[in-house]
Amino acid sequence: MDGAAKARIAQSFGAQSMMATIGARLVRVEKGLVEISAPVLPGMRQQQGYGHAALTFAIGDSAAGYAALTSLPLTQEVVTAEIKINLLAPARGDLLRAVGKVIKPGRRLIVVTSEVFAEDAQGTTPVAVLQGTIVPVPA
Amino acid sequence: MDGAAKARIAQSFGAQSMMATIGARLVRVEKGLVEISAPVLPGMRQQQGYGHAALTFAIGDSAAGYAALTSLPLTQEVVTAEIKINLLAPARGDLLRAVGKVIKPGRRLIVVTSEVFAEDAQGTTPVAVLQGTIVPVPA
Amino acid sequence: MDGAAKARIAQSFGAQSMMATIGARLVRVEKGLVEISAPVLPGMRQQQGYGHAALTFAIGDSAAGYAALTSLPLTQEVVTAEIKINLLAPARGDLLRAVGKVIKPGRRLIVVTSEVFAEDAQGTTPVAVLQGTIVPVPA
Amino acid sequence: MDGAAKARIAQSFGAQSMMATIGARLVRVEKGLVEISAPVLPGMRQQQGYGHAALTFAIGDSAAGYAALTSLPLTQEVVTAEIKINLLAPARGDLLRAVGKVIKPGRRLIVVTSEVFAEDAQGTTPVAVLQGTIVPVPA
Repeated sequence: MDGAAKARIAQSFGAQSMMATIGARLVRVEKGLVEISAPVLPGMRQQQGYGHAALTFAIGDSAAGYAALTSLPLTQEVVTAEIKINLLAPARGDLLRAVGKVIKPGRRLIVVTSEVFAEDAQGTTPVAVLQGTIVPVPA
Repeated sequence: MDGAAKARIAQSFGAQSMMATIGARLVRVEKGLVEISAPVLPGMRQQQGYGHAALTFAIGDSAAGYAALTSLPLTQEVVTAEIKINLLAPARGDLLRAVGKVIKPGRRLIVVTSEVFAEDAQGTTPVAVLQGTIVPVPA
Repeated sequence: MDGAAKARIAQSFGAQSMMATIGARLVRVEKGLVEISAPVLPGMRQQQGYGHAALTFAIGDSAAGYAALTSLPLTQEVVTAEIKINLLAPARGDLLRAVGKVIKPGRRLIVVTSEVFAEDAQGTTPVAVLQGTIVPVPA
Repeated sequence: MDGAAKARIAQSFGAQSMMATIGARLVRVEKGLVEISAPVLPGMRQQQGYGHAALTFAIGDSAAGYAALTSLPLTQEVVTAEIKINLLAPARGDLLRAVGKVIKPGRRLIVVTSEVFAEDAQGTTPVAVLQGTIVPVPA
């Protein structure tokens, strides 16, 4: 990927106020793969004190969407048409990390997956898998 | 539903720091149906300035999960096993409103749906539908 | 709906050899709603002798797809982009019945749901709910 | 896996009349992975003459379910609670092949994925990915 392609993903990411609110960072941007991390902030928890499913969803969906965007020309943006999340374990830990990938690129629909992991001093635990459909739209 | 059943849902809702962060309110709690609203705060937006899909997900998933909880004894809590969201339109407006319902109660699995609407001066627009599986766990 | 619109759905249905193999019938075609039934034939069962999930899927998906097709001009066909099925109960009984509905029409994507019921001498039981995305394509 | 574990999967597979109707074969059974193939028979097609989505679903879902079963003791069977399929391309070709895998084993829920491929003289094409939840039940 060239610099312009990476820059526009960083710019779109920066324009999402939600990403700033949750403290998310764009960690890796490659053709067909994007990684996003986020701390489990005190205000981002469910009733047992673990990371909220909506936090897991936020970075899982965004990583998948931006992975899709790496397959498109600069004249296009993306929106999520639908995505399904299977929660595998409580999001225990200090940091969540999502890796989104393109399964099938396309001009009309892009099929994506995303895996989300929780990290703490003990190690890394898979907490969710997502599978969905991203739609290109004019930028 | 009796007062104790409603109180424990309010208590669980209050224990989710995410619900406070997004400004969510528990609007309605009935047997098999829960409604949650949330403003589209400045920090909860995607790159075009609309409500973020993770915000829509947060209230859609919680409304569905608490709808499931209304069907369970006080000794049980719920976790989302999986949920799928189809996004119908941008979350344009000032307020989002999610109505979660139980489709099929059960001792091991509870199947739920949720609809999310955006409200502004022009009216109410459906922005998402969710379908998922909630699992009872010991409280 | 006019006769030509109904006729092309019957024609498309007739062109699916799978529908003949499972003995499916197109029961009802209205704007945004299609109903399909199928017997639980001896060759369509899972290991406990109930109707197979693939049979439930076959009529649930087709009812949803044809419901979507009722919203489109005659120059377009439909394909399923993705669909999720939650199985609610074993498909016990003699006959399955699927009712597909359009949740959100669109030029690029149509969001649909479908409910599948099993019928026997005792009555009607919901056996599955589906939620998915149908894509219009040139006929 | 020992012989008894493999034998009970073959036996369950043999008890599904649907698998015989579609001509499916159990190709590979390993701990956490099951492969099933099926020809695209003349009676298993959609309106353009390609393999029907219900055929793709039938082997994708079964491969995932039996992959889950490889992780369980002989006293348990499995049922699919829910599964989502994204269709990637028409099922063009003579033979479909599904590879199901366990993503997360568990006593109450098993999360699985499945990939389905179509094969013809030109090669192998991915036609679908599935992600779902399998539930152990007493045999």
